[in-house]
Amino acid sequence: MSGQQRRDLDEMLRHAPLDVGGDVSEARAVFHEMMTSIPLPPDVTTTPGHLGRIPVVTVDTPGSDPDRVLLYFHGGAYAIGSAADAAGLAADVSRRCGARAVCVEYRLAPEHPFPAAVDDAVAAYRALLDQGIPGERIAFVGESAGGGLAVAALVAARDAGLPRPASAAVFSPWTDLTVSGASAAGKARLDPSLTPEALRTRARDYLGSSAGTEPLASPVLADLTGLPPLLVQVGSHEILLDDAVRLAARAAEHDVRVELQVWPRVPHVFQSFAVMLDEADEALNSAAAFTRTHWNPTKDSADSAAAAP
Amino acid sequence: MSGQQRRDLDEMLRHAPLDVGGDVSEARAVFHEMMTSIPLPPDVTTTPGHLGRIPVVTVDTPGSDPDRVLLYFHGGAYAIGSAADAAGLAADVSRRCGARAVCVEYRLAPEHPFPAAVDDAVAAYRALLDQGIPGERIAFVGESAGGGLAVAALVAARDAGLPRPASAAVFSPWTDLTVSGASAAGKARLDPSLTPEALRTRARDYLGSSAGTEPLASPVLADLTGLPPLLVQVGSHEILLDDAVRLAARAAEHDVRVELQVWPRVPHVFQSFAVMLDEADEALNSAAAFTRTHWNPTKDSADSAAAAP
Repeated sequence: MSGQQRRDLDEMLRHAPLDVGGDVSEARAVFHEMMTSIPLPPDVTTTPGHLGRIPVVTVDTPGSDPDRVLLYFHGGAYAIGSAADAAGLAADVSRRCGARAVCVEYRLAPEHPFPAAVDDAVAAYRALLDQGIPGERIAFVGESAGGGLAVAALVAARDAGLPRPASAAVFSPWTDLTVSGASAAGKARLDPSLTPEALRTRARDYLGSSAGTEPLASPVLADLTGLPPLLVQVGSHEILLDDAVRLAARAAEHDVRVELQVWPRVPHVFQSFAVMLDEADEALNSAAAFTRTHWNPTKDSADSAAAAP
Repeated sequence: MSGQQRRDLDEMLRHAPLDVGGDVSEARAVFHEMMTSIPLPPDVTTTPGHLGRIPVVTVDTPGSDPDRVLLYFHGGAYAIGSAADAAGLAADVSRRCGARAVCVEYRLAPEHPFPAAVDDAVAAYRALLDQGIPGERIAFVGESAGGGLAVAALVAARDAGLPRPASAAVFSPWTDLTVSGASAAGKARLDPSLTPEALRTRARDYLGSSAGTEPLASPVLADLTGLPPLLVQVGSHEILLDDAVRLAARAAEHDVRVELQVWPRVPHVFQSFAVMLDEADEALNSAAAFTRTHWNPTKDSADSAAAAP
């Protein structure tokens, strides 16, 4: 029963030892422990390396096409997590998309505040283009802070005049560093993973001397015109629900091809729990279908990229 | 080129003779002329009849399953349009879903103000259930005012204790009779079909002595808890863009499985123009895929219907 699955997951997360807003080095260690507690399937290969100056972990699954790249941005509130920690979910996406995933080791706060992460994300994308992979064979994928970072990187790449990737899929993106969505309070009791206080702590770390209203820190406030097709997935038991909804609303206002998919009563980045939750499996399949649809530029997307109406 | 398709359609609509906010009998005649100017494909059959006391037009396409019913609510700002006028688009949906479409001839304003249309919609649904078609084999479909009406009927049916249908798909739904979305002004220049003034005129006709904030008139203000999976499609060149976005946001807040799909630079109910617009074809295929996915209750939806967490 999926209702039972959801209750089990909620219970598990409420008892998880991770304190997202707590001491950074402890949170990093606990997060690493959680993310690697389930071993990678034996057919997944992970290869450390670099894209230009940016460290990455390349994740391949059987049959995945190395000429189609998912540029993957991990979560962890800009202070926690790593490319290697994300390999499990990245491998799951890789397998369903039939494409290589490259997880970006962007620099973390508080040691490296904004815009270090955005700079690293764009540098990794630029290096991938420089290797000869065209934008139309690259898709951005990100979860949580990595979802916000993926969108910020799209905006920064557009402003730098880089060709756009084929699409972007973001899971429970953190897009508002001012933590001012209605769901920050409205869903706090239902969210088993995150609290507004924890996000505010991590936002202070990340922002440093920058304002939370800076569009590349809070891409929900950015001009999203010209972005590629965007898929936004979120659960309804999340304080970040409104970050997803407002991102979709903003993208729609700015003439972006956008889809918002909301799964009821599931938590933050529920896609991580495909082994125990049917909704995660459905959502990952849907994200893969979206990504595959947009790999090849249709006449529409080619046309949209070329000119405004 | 899809860009050229969009420009052609925009131009055509800007020169269309329909004045949505004008004299009702003239608008009805012009709308009928427009909707029937392209003959139905010869393999479509339309059969007038009744569901209980409510007149309907049943639309069948080759191979469509008469035991799976799309309960279809036409557009026309609650004052214009008819079940027969909607047969073309209903047939297109029927064909892609492999299901019979039944277009509801709900009463129109100003002769029959709110809640006449909602009463008729629920009465038609109840009669369909009484005929022995279970809710799990019924999907609601609606466009424009019919999209808002579909959602209002879901709310009213829930409150009446009726079993819920399998899903609902709404195209450019008018969900806010107070016409207060930001896009009412923000997209006015880009919308070739509708003006805020026209909607306000028709809202006055429909509301009669009721307030625009009445949840069954403006379902974006309703409690949407317990509604079936909902697909919302909209173009970005619409003053009703925010009606779609806010409906999805509200559904998400209320734990409904909801998808919002936005196509850039296309107009109100662009799905009507599949003969000339690639986006319409894509959107209709996507709506059919959504509807087919939800025909059969999964363990998830069965579980969700049975109990809150």
